[in-house]
Amino acid sequence: MEAIANIPDCQSKKRIVIIGGGFAGLEIARKIDSAYYQVVLIDKVNYYQFQPLMYQVATGGLEPSSISYPHRKTFQRKKDFHFRTCYAKQVLADEKIIETSIGSIKYDHLIIATGCDTNYFGNDSLKESTYALKSISESLLARNRILFSFEKALSARTDEKVRELLTFVIVGGGATGVELSGALADMKKTILPKDYPELDFNKMEIHLVDASPRLLFAMSEESSAKAEETLRNRGVIIHQNISVKDYNKPYVELSNGEKLHSHNVFWVGGVKPNSLAGLKEDSYNRGRILVDEYNEVIGYNNIYSIGDTCLLISNNSPKGHPQVAQVAMQMAKNLANNLNQEAKGYTVKEKFSYTDKGSLATIGRNAAVADIWKLHFGGTVAWWLWLWVHILSIVGMKNKVSVFIDWVWSYVTYDVSLRLFIRPKHDKMYDEIDEREKNN
Amino acid sequence: MEAIANIPDCQSKKRIVIIGGGFAGLEIARKIDSAYYQVVLIDKVNYYQFQPLMYQVATGGLEPSSISYPHRKTFQRKKDFHFRTCYAKQVLADEKIIETSIGSIKYDHLIIATGCDTNYFGNDSLKESTYALKSISESLLARNRILFSFEKALSARTDEKVRELLTFVIVGGGATGVELSGALADMKKTILPKDYPELDFNKMEIHLVDASPRLLFAMSEESSAKAEETLRNRGVIIHQNISVKDYNKPYVELSNGEKLHSHNVFWVGGVKPNSLAGLKEDSYNRGRILVDEYNEVIGYNNIYSIGDTCLLISNNSPKGHPQVAQVAMQMAKNLANNLNQEAKGYTVKEKFSYTDKGSLATIGRNAAVADIWKLHFGGTVAWWLWLWVHILSIVGMKNKVSVFIDWVWSYVTYDVSLRLFIRPKHDKMYDEIDEREKNN
Repeated sequence: MEAIANIPDCQSKKRIVIIGGGFAGLEIARKIDSAYYQVVLIDKVNYYQFQPLMYQVATGGLEPSSISYPHRKTFQRKKDFHFRTCYAKQVLADEKIIETSIGSIKYDHLIIATGCDTNYFGNDSLKESTYALKSISESLLARNRILFSFEKALSARTDEKVRELLTFVIVGGGATGVELSGALADMKKTILPKDYPELDFNKMEIHLVDASPRLLFAMSEESSAKAEETLRNRGVIIHQNISVKDYNKPYVELSNGEKLHSHNVFWVGGVKPNSLAGLKEDSYNRGRILVDEYNEVIGYNNIYSIGDTCLLISNNSPKGHPQVAQVAMQMAKNLANNLNQEAKGYTVKEKFSYTDKGSLATIGRNAAVADIWKLHFGGTVAWWLWLWVHILSIVGMKNKVSVFIDWVWSYVTYDVSLRLFIRPKHDKMYDEIDEREKNN
Repeated sequence: MEAIANIPDCQSKKRIVIIGGGFAGLEIARKIDSAYYQVVLIDKVNYYQFQPLMYQVATGGLEPSSISYPHRKTFQRKKDFHFRTCYAKQVLADEKIIETSIGSIKYDHLIIATGCDTNYFGNDSLKESTYALKSISESLLARNRILFSFEKALSARTDEKVRELLTFVIVGGGATGVELSGALADMKKTILPKDYPELDFNKMEIHLVDASPRLLFAMSEESSAKAEETLRNRGVIIHQNISVKDYNKPYVELSNGEKLHSHNVFWVGGVKPNSLAGLKEDSYNRGRILVDEYNEVIGYNNIYSIGDTCLLISNNSPKGHPQVAQVAMQMAKNLANNLNQEAKGYTVKEKFSYTDKGSLATIGRNAAVADIWKLHFGGTVAWWLWLWVHILSIVGMKNKVSVFIDWVWSYVTYDVSLRLFIRPKHDKMYDEIDEREKNN
């Protein structure tokens, strides 16, 4: 039994512990009424990360601080709220305890909102050799990789090596994959030739490898077709219905036997739920935590799960809901309401029901696709809508302003001003420099 | 002999190779006339780092991108200019070659502007256990450390541990030390109690340890006295005429036998020139490269050194010049002029002469000190002057705007919105988390 974590006593109130500060966790922490509950939020980092714009951090369009927001600031005015930076280790459901890296925390209600991480489908060597975009740190590493490839290409001694360095392979045709390919295609046309007049950008190739039958599989067929057309027009080479079997630098082996040569492989090909020890095996379905229509974990009382990590199967959603921000936030709202009502003595609970407000994905400058109700449209209108929706969704007025300025600036100047390596000691970048030095 | 680096032939022109893209290197690269010379700039990172504001990155007031600027963007319009991200290894003066991590580069003129790094005065264990502020990466690491200490303090189980985590020791009473202490003192009063209502900030101590007889030793006695008074009023504990003998976490051993207990030691106590292999031993004086009044390295032709790394002893400067940005930039301008004139066929060279435009240091909100000509003044006027001078010195219009917005925002709201850990994998932070987990 671990030592008890240092958290003020909740006295007569009940304590709700929330694991994870993403879309779901943050929303429920906000909506739970402090008059009835003490709220404890735990997260591995001390800030909220706005995932939809990670690819812009990777391509240098935005700074990390613009799409992140400190949890403590979000909750500065919330009473009896306690945030702790730590890891959840395991649930001891019988004792109503969650064990964490800072000690054990007693709960009355536990809410698991741990989200998802990148799925390498069993091939863990890919984790080391490719770049992911699930966190700010990963996106910065990806940005370093992109910039560094151009720097290396300048000093490469063979045409083959130059091509390998200028070949970008994006694995996964979902929103992130489409957005990243589009952003790279834009850079190839605008900034890069200005910054690297010595490089021949005809040698730069952008490959998008997608295992599903069409890009943006979660969106309408019209949107998929439009995305595909726009990317092709901008020079992206699309490999549809094809997966990556293996990657041994610089060889990317595709399922159709083809080999691409690249030093830059970005893996945005799937997600898997973050696991949490202590729950029974039959509470899971392919890694996702099974919940009932009130988001209570099957087989438990007072343990809930919301967002990407849970799976809610009902008559209305026989296959579960899509793992998107909208579902996460709506689940959070519904569960918060139910818990607030329960504390006030009401016994009637609302079942979760999902209202799809539509989907948007951006493909690049002046190009996006939108599925809203029965409407499918693309082009500049969808792009402006995308910008607007994202600026509104970013947490913090100052962040909204700074993202707006950054976007207007890049739009007008066709230029991104954030082309910096930020290289902490001992990261992949340094290793590569050392490796390069050895090979000289 | 190394392979030749991939740089376009300079044809009929002469090639100038500049090592280092700081104040001196950037200025001379700008001023050298491309009509007469091919300019090759090499640097370890691909951007310029504005050192005077590193402490604001460390304390969360500014983002790295606001005080950095990509070299390629600076020189986008300069003809026959070539930038390479690499390390200089050694000079082969007889062959007029500089060996680098991307191969050897032939030069006609070599300009060494490698600047300085932190000086641990032989105690290299301090390098691992303390935090420095000489680069963007180091400043981010320092920021993580500062934020993480507060997070850790929340979970500490003894009062002693809390005090150790809330004790900040800054070693070095120059501008950076004074500025960092002042910024922490401001945070203690404004942001921190709002973010950490559970912590008792009476336990937070800021110690400034200075080996010299007075703070800001390079400035006037009036300014030193004013800085000392202001810092004391804001709660900083000053240890004057005292040095740090050793640091074994959490024990900081001072030269007077006193011991401070702290997990946060910032080492801004001195600089040493970055060395470059290949020059004769008698070209150096305590690590600095000896140059004549034209900044030509003693004992060599066509090798020059400018900025913090060189030492110019003349009748006007029997002890050399201060290692500050102004000297570096003026040396760069003078040498660029001489080289441009030489290319045009003029044989008369100008000797370097230093014009001191005055010194400024900020102590915190509404407080700074200024020595301008014979004038010494402090307070709000000096502070506004400091802000203005620094905004003008920052490279890039967009950076000027964004620093201005950040400063106005913090000034009006008493708040800093950038309180984020950016934790790359495998950095010190993670190790500390793991270590903490073990101790639980």
